Amino acid sequence: MGRGAPGEPTAVRRVVRWPEGAPTDDVLAREEPLEIRVEDRAVAVTMRTPGADLDLAAGFLFTEGIVDGADDLVALEHLPGDADGNTVVARVAGGVEAHAEAVERATRALYATSACGICGKASLERIRLLAPPVRPVALDPEVLRWLPERLRAAQPAFDATGGLHGAALVALDGAIEVVREDIGRHNAVDKVLGSRLRADRVPVDDRVLVVTSRAGFELVQKARMAGVPALVAMGAASDLAVDLAVDGGMALVGFLREDRYVRYA
Amino acid sequence: MGRGAPGEPTAVRRVVRWPEGAPTDDVLAREEPLEIRVEDRAVAVTMRTPGADLDLAAGFLFTEGIVDGADDLVALEHLPGDADGNTVVARVAGGVEAHAEAVERATRALYATSACGICGKASLERIRLLAPPVRPVALDPEVLRWLPERLRAAQPAFDATGGLHGAALVALDGAIEVVREDIGRHNAVDKVLGSRLRADRVPVDDRVLVVTSRAGFELVQKARMAGVPALVAMGAASDLAVDLAVDGGMALVGFLREDRYVRYA
Repeated sequence: MGRGAPGEPTAVRRVVRWPEGAPTDDVLAREEPLEIRVEDRAVAVTMRTPGADLDLAAGFLFTEGIVDGADDLVALEHLPGDADGNTVVARVAGGVEAHAEAVERATRALYATSACGICGKASLERIRLLAPPVRPVALDPEVLRWLPERLRAAQPAFDATGGLHGAALVALDGAIEVVREDIGRHNAVDKVLGSRLRADRVPVDDRVLVVTSRAGFELVQKARMAGVPALVAMGAASDLAVDLAVDGGMALVGFLREDRYVRYA
Repeated sequence: MGRGAPGEPTAVRRVVRWPEGAPTDDVLAREEPLEIRVEDRAVAVTMRTPGADLDLAAGFLFTEGIVDGADDLVALEHLPGDADGNTVVARVAGGVEAHAEAVERATRALYATSACGICGKASLERIRLLAPPVRPVALDPEVLRWLPERLRAAQPAFDATGGLHGAALVALDGAIEVVREDIGRHNAVDKVLGSRLRADRVPVDDRVLVVTSRAGFELVQKARMAGVPALVAMGAASDLAVDLAVDGGMALVGFLREDRYVRYA
């Protein structure tokens, strides 16, 4: 998959910008799982951008009530010998037993904090197993460019609150089949895909999934599980989202505007 | 807490807009936990905006591989007699045993999908228990208005990728102490708060927490756990975020721009 160097917050991928058309390099935010362990117990896996991992682990343990101060945190380091740099181990005063209740609560309720699906590489293999490559479709720039305006017009609550993500299933000619909104972008996507399942019309291989948000790993994962051939986002895509889309033959578009967009895959 | 009516996607809260200054009503996106059950087994709790709950549950079960099609989904309804409307029950072909592996995986790895902390009301009570009300601070509009520009200048990776959330701890006079970036807004917040814990400087009762994203429930929760007296967001706040801030005496500002902002609490 050509993953970036451990600790690097960005990665480069080849993209095609519309309307320019020629392939160029683009700098993407990286997205990698970080496992946070208290002693030998994994308490969280979060999809994060590498960098400041020890701060992230310390802040997680603090804001989840597992440690109350620096005295509680005896040591904090990346797992020795782990070349990926995706595991941080915390040693806590009194050992894991002294923090058992908080650790148990965090493990149970907070396995994923950053809208993480089933994080990382195990997930990719599972998706390959469960979701065959999608059926490729051709995207028309003259259809894509008007989608932001049309989707916004179809999003009633967003106009009122300015605080909701939208997701839509759109035909290749731009006809909007269904729009759903939610404070969580993953929920908005689940809502539109679920409407199709409930209508007994899956896989969703005849529609483009359009989201008003960024395109992270989990949105691509959900789209692939549903057989969606193209994901179009108004925001940026992460490196892992691009890699997962390429792996499944899915078209992935980002930064969609009336006068430009980026084709990642 | 004056929660909205079940099923409503928006709620009204009193706010003060700057520079106007007089209190007015504002329409906010609602944020409530939805528990998704397969038969009698809770497989997910996600913070969601009410509405299309059955689509959301169906889509979650579909994209997580628990059901493969409409035939698998024998019935789907809100929990009978539950006035909150925050629980959906799915009946699946063959019962939960026939989907045991996928259910187990989802329960273990996906308890929270929409960046959910410890969702909902139990969480509020826990925060009240663990986090005392914060020490109130006075916010200066002439300091606040320049924060977006200053924070953007301090966010190197965002400029490169356009795809990262930023979080910062800022003194009351606008001095930026620390900035961290991440693809997950919760991670960016954990990173800045964790940097303070590691420096043995908690609680963080002397700084404003500034985020480039929206202010959801979980960010307010993390801020309260750290003793932060004010959360300032460039995006919208949810109703639950406002309620949790009010409950703890925390100042909450949204839609921060050079020429305007909204004071929620």
